[in-house]
Amino acid sequence: MKLMAAAVGVKTDVIGKFGIMAASKLQGIFTPNLVPYTADGGINEGELRRYADWLIARGVHGLYPNGSTGEFTRFTPEERRRIVAILADQVRGRVPILAGAAEANVKETIRACEYYASLGIRAVAIVAPFYYKLSPASVYAYFAEIGRNTPIDVTLYNIPMFASPIDVPTIQRLSEEFERIVAIKDSSGDIPHMIRMIQAVRPNRPDFAFLTGWDAALMPMLLAGCDGGTNASSGVVPELTRRLYDLTVSYQIDEARRVQYDLIRLFDTMIYSAEFPEGFRAAVGLRGFQMGQGRQPLSDKQKTDLGTLSRELQCMLSAHGFTDQPVGGCSLPAGTEAQPDAADVTAIVRQVVAELSRRGLM
Amino acid sequence: MKLMAAAVGVKTDVIGKFGIMAASKLQGIFTPNLVPYTADGGINEGELRRYADWLIARGVHGLYPNGSTGEFTRFTPEERRRIVAILADQVRGRVPILAGAAEANVKETIRACEYYASLGIRAVAIVAPFYYKLSPASVYAYFAEIGRNTPIDVTLYNIPMFASPIDVPTIQRLSEEFERIVAIKDSSGDIPHMIRMIQAVRPNRPDFAFLTGWDAALMPMLLAGCDGGTNASSGVVPELTRRLYDLTVSYQIDEARRVQYDLIRLFDTMIYSAEFPEGFRAAVGLRGFQMGQGRQPLSDKQKTDLGTLSRELQCMLSAHGFTDQPVGGCSLPAGTEAQPDAADVTAIVRQVVAELSRRGLM
Amino acid sequence: MKLMAAAVGVKTDVIGKFGIMAASKLQGIFTPNLVPYTADGGINEGELRRYADWLIARGVHGLYPNGSTGEFTRFTPEERRRIVAILADQVRGRVPILAGAAEANVKETIRACEYYASLGIRAVAIVAPFYYKLSPASVYAYFAEIGRNTPIDVTLYNIPMFASPIDVPTIQRLSEEFERIVAIKDSSGDIPHMIRMIQAVRPNRPDFAFLTGWDAALMPMLLAGCDGGTNASSGVVPELTRRLYDLTVSYQIDEARRVQYDLIRLFDTMIYSAEFPEGFRAAVGLRGFQMGQGRQPLSDKQKTDLGTLSRELQCMLSAHGFTDQPVGGCSLPAGTEAQPDAADVTAIVRQVVAELSRRGLM
Amino acid sequence: MKLMAAAVGVKTDVIGKFGIMAASKLQGIFTPNLVPYTADGGINEGELRRYADWLIARGVHGLYPNGSTGEFTRFTPEERRRIVAILADQVRGRVPILAGAAEANVKETIRACEYYASLGIRAVAIVAPFYYKLSPASVYAYFAEIGRNTPIDVTLYNIPMFASPIDVPTIQRLSEEFERIVAIKDSSGDIPHMIRMIQAVRPNRPDFAFLTGWDAALMPMLLAGCDGGTNASSGVVPELTRRLYDLTVSYQIDEARRVQYDLIRLFDTMIYSAEFPEGFRAAVGLRGFQMGQGRQPLSDKQKTDLGTLSRELQCMLSAHGFTDQPVGGCSLPAGTEAQPDAADVTAIVRQVVAELSRRGLM
Repeated sequence: MKLMAAAVGVKTDVIGKFGIMAASKLQGIFTPNLVPYTADGGINEGELRRYADWLIARGVHGLYPNGSTGEFTRFTPEERRRIVAILADQVRGRVPILAGAAEANVKETIRACEYYASLGIRAVAIVAPFYYKLSPASVYAYFAEIGRNTPIDVTLYNIPMFASPIDVPTIQRLSEEFERIVAIKDSSGDIPHMIRMIQAVRPNRPDFAFLTGWDAALMPMLLAGCDGGTNASSGVVPELTRRLYDLTVSYQIDEARRVQYDLIRLFDTMIYSAEFPEGFRAAVGLRGFQMGQGRQPLSDKQKTDLGTLSRELQCMLSAHGFTDQPVGGCSLPAGTEAQPDAADVTAIVRQVVAELSRRGLM
Repeated sequence: MKLMAAAVGVKTDVIGKFGIMAASKLQGIFTPNLVPYTADGGINEGELRRYADWLIARGVHGLYPNGSTGEFTRFTPEERRRIVAILADQVRGRVPILAGAAEANVKETIRACEYYASLGIRAVAIVAPFYYKLSPASVYAYFAEIGRNTPIDVTLYNIPMFASPIDVPTIQRLSEEFERIVAIKDSSGDIPHMIRMIQAVRPNRPDFAFLTGWDAALMPMLLAGCDGGTNASSGVVPELTRRLYDLTVSYQIDEARRVQYDLIRLFDTMIYSAEFPEGFRAAVGLRGFQMGQGRQPLSDKQKTDLGTLSRELQCMLSAHGFTDQPVGGCSLPAGTEAQPDAADVTAIVRQVVAELSRRGLM
Repeated sequence: MKLMAAAVGVKTDVIGKFGIMAASKLQGIFTPNLVPYTADGGINEGELRRYADWLIARGVHGLYPNGSTGEFTRFTPEERRRIVAILADQVRGRVPILAGAAEANVKETIRACEYYASLGIRAVAIVAPFYYKLSPASVYAYFAEIGRNTPIDVTLYNIPMFASPIDVPTIQRLSEEFERIVAIKDSSGDIPHMIRMIQAVRPNRPDFAFLTGWDAALMPMLLAGCDGGTNASSGVVPELTRRLYDLTVSYQIDEARRVQYDLIRLFDTMIYSAEFPEGFRAAVGLRGFQMGQGRQPLSDKQKTDLGTLSRELQCMLSAHGFTDQPVGGCSLPAGTEAQPDAADVTAIVRQVVAELSRRGLM
Repeated sequence: MKLMAAAVGVKTDVIGKFGIMAASKLQGIFTPNLVPYTADGGINEGELRRYADWLIARGVHGLYPNGSTGEFTRFTPEERRRIVAILADQVRGRVPILAGAAEANVKETIRACEYYASLGIRAVAIVAPFYYKLSPASVYAYFAEIGRNTPIDVTLYNIPMFASPIDVPTIQRLSEEFERIVAIKDSSGDIPHMIRMIQAVRPNRPDFAFLTGWDAALMPMLLAGCDGGTNASSGVVPELTRRLYDLTVSYQIDEARRVQYDLIRLFDTMIYSAEFPEGFRAAVGLRGFQMGQGRQPLSDKQKTDLGTLSRELQCMLSAHGFTDQPVGGCSLPAGTEAQPDAADVTAIVRQVVAELSRRGLM
């Protein structure tokens, strides 16, 4: 119960603009958890329950199913509901759950919000519409319709790499018009942008929470004013991500910087060495979970590469004491072996840029 | 039956690399048709049937439901199936149907292919996975899995603006390995890219079809070697798009260029003056169909703007004799009134670039 | 003299908006010629003169020194003037010269215009300001200042890949306000964009010329309404580029398409297989000119790669009869050997995208 | 003399990999100073000298002429040399000078390095080649040639927005091979990228300095491990930028955050409300210097806008006590009046995105 207190027990001591006592603020590290698969590609309910317990025991402040790491687009609407129901049943209030609720259109999304409210979930997170690139006016209209109808607190989810961006004026307007919109999760990794959002919203909504989804910038984001993060690395090394959070919010700057430097190496390896989120899936497997095969088919070469990556990750995890070394040992210090030399990279970049251009992709 | 002959009756007279007589090649103009909505936001079956008949009567070579223009992402999986079933029932083989079949994951997509095959559809079109930006290896693995299991001909759908790109080597490899993959629809509008695809594929697969989804380049695309197009403007002015096709393939260059110039004005106005595909929806409404409200909510200002756009479109359509002039008439020649002057644009661009940068979007 | 007539002898038979007889329109293929270097890195005047004669003898309609292919940024202001002076002296009116005149600021650029006018050059080409990305308002103000002060005809040079873009309203406004601005060279390769420019300008300025700098789209650009091109490939295979021009403007579509397909292979190899314009420099060397070492230093690996490329280019050129085969012969048909297989490319792209992301470049 | 000690007096107490005592490390805030113009557009030497004294008196640790803020591309080679000579003469060692030395090609750049060495300048800063987008191999080869020949310490200048990017492996390799390459100035504003550079270089080169050019992220950059910054805002409010530096490096986090929040408002207004660096020029004018007209022509509307901006900046500066309020006063608290409301922005963005697309710029 102490962890939960740290996460959600902080009552904001102001009377917000809506004239009522604001609910407890979203705060701390929320794990955007992966879903383990069974041999035939379904949801592995047992491992999912075991994984949730393991994460909570290692100190994450909350869970976040149906996020990008959780591959929400690769499930059917029914499966997305089932994942959240399993977790709600397993967690039973030990930590807050933030459930991804985006569906095919605004009406279906509101229906999902209603269902998640009925499960007693703390809040939902809703990504801006994707595939089509919408204008700020349409993004506003979409979230306004949700703000008017949702029975549960809503976190805006801004991930401009994958979905229509939610810009600062839109966030400000939504925060002022809809009490049920209580937070933003931003995965852009852009710190000045985070500061601009905070400056635009916090004066009128001190209860509004700002979460960063970009692990590589977690420490400076928190120091710049963020309330927490939804960080995929916390699904792999919850101990380390939690430690980085604690060190940073207590201003132990030098030590926090060292942990951030460690985390960025691990994060980069997981995110850039395989199709997202396969690197994270491999690493969670190394921590002792049966994750199964992902739903996105892989070529033979990708499967081989994933084996190499897994070995490299095991060396990095073992350096922190999280796993044993792989059979055969780790000849090089973790983190060095992956560095391609400049000449190789140079040649590769030239080739690929040429290839991309030839194909009209650049 | 003559139209259909023009579209699909062209038997390629070669024995393809798979050693069997290739099926009739996809060719001509396929309309990526919109779906009319009922008052409560459902599929308006009656209008959809009437619209299909109208399009066929005006000369389009085929229909293409569940494309980007058809807002496939805004429907539930059940609705997508129903749209195709209605059209199959209404069209009854008068023209070929190309049905968008992308679902949440590869297994669900293959199930949709099986269903569409059972309806007697000519072929499916499958967009590369979206939201996540996949590498060429993953895009290959995805389509290879489909190529191995589909019971129906497959058109690859490349739209790098919205989905993971399908690059030239991937297209080439898929075309050589899977006989059921018979065409590509490319919406990039990049002519050298189209030529590179044709050069890579046609020598081994003369039956493979190349369709362009970019109306603004239809004439030069056809002259550069394309077989046809899936063009949203053909859902609005099927007479004009069909005429452009006929003039171009018979090398009536000067006249074709004039029609292409006309079409680009209309296309630009529909595609850039409102959130896609609302401009097309408004224009189809002007041709006499009850299209209903789109599923993406609009702000009040967007609704007002759409009224203005509709009037502008009516003037453009009336200049071609497709509609009457709007009440009050068209004071300026169609196409001129929308041109903002350079100083205005200059000021706007400065403001917006500044705003985009401030928000971290640039 | 017949060639020159084709290029510049076409008097437009209209009285333009400025109420005077418009000068002869820029038309045909202008070669953006490279500059041969001496052993110590200076301008090789003898080879430059010999190269100009060779190009004219093979049918190019004009020369275009100090363009991007001509590496204008790598010369001092004095060297840029000397290059044009040499060519003016050598050409002596046999073909028109279009001289790149962009200097450090608007005042220096106007001085360069004055100098080129004194040499009897046909026109200058001025790229929009680069390094800083300017707004349309600033681009307008820059060219307006030039339009008010230039004593020589000016071609706007739009190359958004490298410099601030010149947008359609700016081009339209400049064309209407300044008689001395007589053409645009556009290197974007975007055909709809070219059509939009023509639609905006030609009605008021029938004498205004539209030149494309993108060889890979030369045929469709001409068919869409362009007047000619400034094409780097014409510096390597002037016979082929000229032939493509002649076939296209006489509407010999099937044959023109075949030549365009050939040209795109050669162009792609030269532009994407080495740092621009080293591929073109190597190819011109194969046609018999001493080009010397470029001014941009190359790594050892780049030098080796350039040797391989040169051999490949020689095979392509020999297939057209422009050179002998390299020693050892060409084992594969020209054009095939360069095609990497999909799996390789896949792996490379994955690695590079990862690397680019890791470095914060994507 | 105390300021200078703070800036450059920190001797690194290690024996670097080159086996000699490393020189004092670049550290603190270097002002990328603007150049005041005379009425006829030349360099205003008197004001430039007075401005340098004023900056030093207000605590900046060094000066940085011929940077992007200093509009180096808009001067002739002779003018660039003269600017540095004037400053060297005026400063006479009170603070270190970092001089931008990029010229048309590598040979000219090395000549500039030699000249600046002869003036007793502390170090040069050299931007990667621009206009052409070079591959990492070419960027390496360019700086390696400089590293082999420079008689003066070199700072790499990475500004991917304007010039070819210098990637992490290239920086690492250059730092290991060339002792004379002693620092990098990075203007990308990307903190994870900064961390990756530090991780790659610092272990082998503890004397190598990392400077950020992005004022909006100065505090988090310093906390993440940077040694200082070259920040345009320090040319306008040197007192504030210096204070932010001092608060941050002494870990007064809460107060540093407040100053960073103030600085970001001012920075955003200067950088996004006018063509760069006109906003900074206007603000320096408000601090009491005759800056003259910039060399890039402005449209009439731009001139009017600049007047409005100047008034707004005066209100912001007066709120900090740096200037009086403008005549007529500041009705709104500084920082609020510039915020456009969401609906306006929405409409503008829609229009502009449409316009950009129509012109083929998006």
